[in-house]
This record gives sequence, C-alpha cells and structure tokens, in this order.
Amino acid sequence: MSFKRIGVIGSGQLGRMLALAGTPLDVEFVFYDEARVSPSCNLGKCIFPSEQGSFEQFADSVDVITYESENTNLELVRKLNQIKPVYPGEASLSKSQHRLTEKNTFRDLGLNTANFLRVASKEDLLDAAKQLGLPIVLKTTTMGYDGKGQAVVKTEDDINGAWELLGAHELIAESFVNFSRELSVIAVRDIKGNTKVYPISENDHEAGILRISRVPAKALSPEKQKQAQDYITTMLNHLEHVGVLTLELFDCDNGLVVNEMAPRVHNSGHWSMEGSHCGQFENHVRAISGMPLGDTSPKQESAAMINIIGKTGDRDSVLSTPNAHLHLYGKEERLNRKLGHINLLGNSHAEVELAIKKLGAFIKECG
Amino acid sequence: MSFKRIGVIGSGQLGRMLALAGTPLDVEFVFYDEARVSPSCNLGKCIFPSEQGSFEQFADSVDVITYESENTNLELVRKLNQIKPVYPGEASLSKSQHRLTEKNTFRDLGLNTANFLRVASKEDLLDAAKQLGLPIVLKTTTMGYDGKGQAVVKTEDDINGAWELLGAHELIAESFVNFSRELSVIAVRDIKGNTKVYPISENDHEAGILRISRVPAKALSPEKQKQAQDYITTMLNHLEHVGVLTLELFDCDNGLVVNEMAPRVHNSGHWSMEGSHCGQFENHVRAISGMPLGDTSPKQESAAMINIIGKTGDRDSVLSTPNAHLHLYGKEERLNRKLGHINLLGNSHAEVELAIKKLGAFIKECG
Repeated sequence: MSFKRIGVIGSGQLGRMLALAGTPLDVEFVFYDEARVSPSCNLGKCIFPSEQGSFEQFADSVDVITYESENTNLELVRKLNQIKPVYPGEASLSKSQHRLTEKNTFRDLGLNTANFLRVASKEDLLDAAKQLGLPIVLKTTTMGYDGKGQAVVKTEDDINGAWELLGAHELIAESFVNFSRELSVIAVRDIKGNTKVYPISENDHEAGILRISRVPAKALSPEKQKQAQDYITTMLNHLEHVGVLTLELFDCDNGLVVNEMAPRVHNSGHWSMEGSHCGQFENHVRAISGMPLGDTSPKQESAAMINIIGKTGDRDSVLSTPNAHLHLYGKEERLNRKLGHINLLGNSHAEVELAIKKLGAFIKECG
Repeated sequence: MSFKRIGVIGSGQLGRMLALAGTPLDVEFVFYDEARVSPSCNLGKCIFPSEQGSFEQFADSVDVITYESENTNLELVRKLNQIKPVYPGEASLSKSQHRLTEKNTFRDLGLNTANFLRVASKEDLLDAAKQLGLPIVLKTTTMGYDGKGQAVVKTEDDINGAWELLGAHELIAESFVNFSRELSVIAVRDIKGNTKVYPISENDHEAGILRISRVPAKALSPEKQKQAQDYITTMLNHLEHVGVLTLELFDCDNGLVVNEMAPRVHNSGHWSMEGSHCGQFENHVRAISGMPLGDTSPKQESAAMINIIGKTGDRDSVLSTPNAHLHLYGKEERLNRKLGHINLLGNSHAEVELAIKKLGAFIKECG
C-alpha cells in the first residue's frame, strides 16, 4: 500500500537518496532513465525512455513527477506535466537552465548579482571586457556544472583562448566577484506555499567540485543570514516553487551575492540527512507529495559533509569514526566522480574540524 | 558496484529496514520469500522459493545470508550454510526456535529464568501445576510469537481448557514470574567477536503486542543494567552469534529474569534508527558483512518507539510533530497488524512522554 508513487527523471545518487528517505513514508519510486545499472536501480521500478510506450508507462504509473537535474529536458517536463504534476514546476526548471534568464530573474527581484552581459559574438566579448572591466568570467548560458563550460578572462591576452573554447555556445560574461567564501542556502516550499529554510552552509570547492560543506557557516552576521533567508524565500514564492530549492551565494564584504540556483536537493545539503530533524530528501518528498513539511533545524551545534571523490578510500576507518555517517552511491571508482559522502555531527566546530581532518586522510583521492 | 550482497530469508518490515540501512553502505539485497508484494519488494531482487532453481539462484547471487524470523526453516538454513555463510548461525537459530532448549541454555549459562518443566502429556501438566505451583504459563515449545500459543493456568479449573487449546503441541510449563515491567536488551557481535550493547529498553505490551518502547528504561539500577549487559554478552559469546541478538527480560524485585531471545533485530530496538549513532539495522548489516560495528550509544537523553497497529491514523499530524520520525512498512491496514512505527527523541523523559500522549491520539487503532 503506497501512499504516493513518485516518478523521478534520472536515476543517480539524488534519486537514490530520495527513495531511501521517501520509502519510510510509504512512497514508492519509479525512475525514468536509460541507465541499466545506476545508484537508484535497486530502489524502485526503472523505465527506459528508449523503449516504446515508455513515456505513457512512466506518466501512468506515478502520481507526481520530479527530476534530479536542472539539465532535464524542458520539453519532456512540459509534456509530462500535461498528464501528471511535475514539481518543481516549469518556471523553476526553465530559469535554472539558462544562466542569463536566471541572472535577469535575480536582478528583477532585487537580489544582488555580479554585473553581467550577454555574449553572442566576439565583439560582444570585447565589449563586455570593457564595460565590466577585467577579470571577467565567461560561461555558457546552458549545461554548465561543476566548473565545466567556464573560462576566466584575466587579461586581454585570454580573450582569444576563451572565445575559442566557448564561442560555439551562447554565453554570459560576468564581472569577477571579490568574495571570501562560497555559501549556499537551501529551502523547501510545499504545495500550499509554506516554506522552511535550512541553516546556511559554507562550501569548499577544489578544481570546481564541492569537497566539504560546513553547517552553520561560521561567523555569518545576522544581517547576512537574514539576507540569505529573504533571497531564497523571495525566489520560492516568485517561482511558486514546490520542493527543495538551492541558492549558491558569494560572501562579500558588503553583503551576499547570488551566483546561481538549483531547483533541487543539493550536494551542499547532504549534511541534513542526519544533521537536521528532517533532511532535504525527506522534505522534498513531503513537499511534492502534499505532506506537511518537516523541521529543518539542526540536531547538533555543528555538522559537515565530506564528498568522497574518485576513490572510496579506507571504508573501515570511516565506519569506525564516531559520529560519522557513510553514504555511498553504488558507483564504480573513477577520477573526479562523486562516489558518496560522509556526514559528521558534533557539539562544536572544533570537534567537527578534528573529524574532518582525520577522515580526509582516509578518503583522499588517489586516482 | 556493491560491496556485499546480502540475502534475506523473508521480505517483511525487518528486511525493508535492513535494506534501507544497508544500501548507503553499498550493500545490495536479495529477498527469498514467496510474497509477490511485500514491505521489502521494492528494495532489492526477489526470488520466490516455489520457483524451480530458486534455491541455487538465491545462494549464488549473494555473499552472505541472514533471516528475518526465529521461525525460519532450520533445514533451509543448514543447506544454505553449506554454500554461503548464514548469520546468525545455526546455534542461535535452533536455540531460539525451541522454548525448552532456549530455557535450558539460559539455565546452563547461569541466567535467571522462571522455573520450568517440559509437558508432553496431560499428566505432565498436572505434575507441573503441583511442582511449580499455580499460576503457571503453558507455552508451545515452537512457533509462538506476539502472545500466540500461550495459555495461563490460574487455577486447577483452567487445566482442561489449556490442555484442549495447546495439548496437540509439545509444551513447556513455566512458573509465573512476578515482575514490575518488561525490558529488553539488544546487542550486536561481529565476526571477530567484538560486541556492542544498546541501552536497555522498557516495553509496554497490550493484548500480547508491543505498543511502546522507552529508552533508557527509567530508574533501572546499575546492578540490573550490568546484569542485562552481562547476560547478553554471555549469550552472544556462547552462541558465537554474528549479528544482532535480543533478550527479553522481566524486571523483578531481586533482579532480572530472562524470558526469551530473538536472534535478530527486534521491534523494541526500532528506536535506535534515529535514537542511536548507529541503529540496530545498520549494525546488523555491518556485523554480517564483516564491517566494523557502529556506536550503539544514544543521541539524546530519551527516546521512544510507538508501534502503529491496525490503522495508520492521522499521518499528517504525525509528520507535523517535531522530533517524530515516521516509519511505515507499506502494508495494508488490518486488525492487529504492525503497519509502522514512530520514533521519538527528546532531551528528557517528560518531553518524550508528552509527545507519546499526543501521538497516541493520532494513531489509536480504530479497527
């Protein structure tokens, strides 16, 4: 007896963790993805898009549909939404897919962003370099993630190289933001419009890939906390978003600057699985299924999430670490691949920092 | 890439919760059970014993095997164990299956039990009534659970009725234990012989079915706590048990008395899923897979588990209760059926008691 059946477009680790969180609420999962072996494939029925009749089969077999990625095909979502509700809705997905539309939306709603310009030609790029002032960051408007599809133009000498690399795509040029750290704020909105916000996370990247998130972000002023909460609540309501939404932020001297949004559960929110009373995966399931939202407040003073990348490392040492929770995704080891993460809880930042240091040695990528 | 594949004989809620706890450790699950629809059926491959070749298919497709119930067919376990290790082993299973063997084992190891006698005839029963003194509890030696297969003989007038009810089976007569409450102690032992013990739980039954477990058992003397820990450690080592083991205990004026054991994760240990750093399901998976054991200590001062029986009740009110974690088993509503449970955490017994009272109203069986 399932209460709801959720269809997930995709079958990666986000689908896996949605299913693990939703199953205890009597929700069943159906995954719509071409992969025969995947992180989600043991946790529900899999429907393969290439097979005849699969679209109808998928839509018919579920009550509500969600997706794992902001790169999900928008046309597919539109067609599915004519049969079953898809959450987050079209506005959230389409605006997340296009950096220019996204940035315009931020600006229109009064959220601080980097200065930016559309770049459709090399002339535009030369123009942007002048108007915004170097350095600038050049990004494809679509399909970028984990630092892919980006180039930094530091001096005029970099312009040709950046254009050769990315010029085949529609681009956005952004002025360089002088920030001290990257933060993210994650929140959830239900079908009735209720919202709940998770504590703000501080994110360490390396080579464009998230390595560690720490919660709550240390020494963040009440003004900036309020700014982050206001920003995400503004976005949730503007988009009439249903489900979890993430805003990536730069922490600057004179306030926060929004970098981008993701209409989904987010790597920087994985700490919440054990770290908050109701984790982001359970809250996403609750929101899109019409259940009441759960408590987003943290269980302990301090939490952290360490990504396991490339190599699984010394599993037994991780399992022997008190207060560490291991989450593997069932994926083969491969350079730069996210294979899992470790959640850490502690009664102080210092306690968690010590554990991060120790665990870092066990899982360091050897690839 | 699965680290281990665990075969589970059975596909009920215990299998479901093992799979939910084991999947993040890259363990995959295969269920060996006749049910086509079951609490576990979405969380792994299902093999149906009635189908030809299923025995070999099951044994071949897993690395290690466990079971959900002490009523698992012993011959099946013996045959499987010739191909793949089955944990807990034969000693644990066979002794749990037979109340007389079980009680003799307790007595031989110096654990306090009720006085008992084997009853194979009506004459034995009359004899037992005299030797043990009325009242006595008459139980079938095998297949009893949740109060089934039992009769209380209070006066000589009850003897005929009890014999008519149960006389077709091999029986054990036990003297009545004068206890103030029922407790349980749960522990886990790994393949190398390391052990960890969970805090002792106080269990409220109604009509023979567990309704509420509270952890830690209130005002339990250090002597009795030590007694419980010693008893379960003695049993774990005597049986060379691998996995989780449960001892049900009576709390009496002059010490604890062992009632019975279960060679498995136990309903009275469900609180540990959120209530301890490593819950009983994860620790069972770790133990039988050769991983290091996790920390069994509690996360907060007080925890409780409320069984949802017969009717699911007002799900949204449960989900709206702070600190309450809902675990449903995907089963249809039916009188006296265990459909799920709610785990509660709090910083004091009083806080948890208040939540129990409130939640009790939401889920009270209406059947």
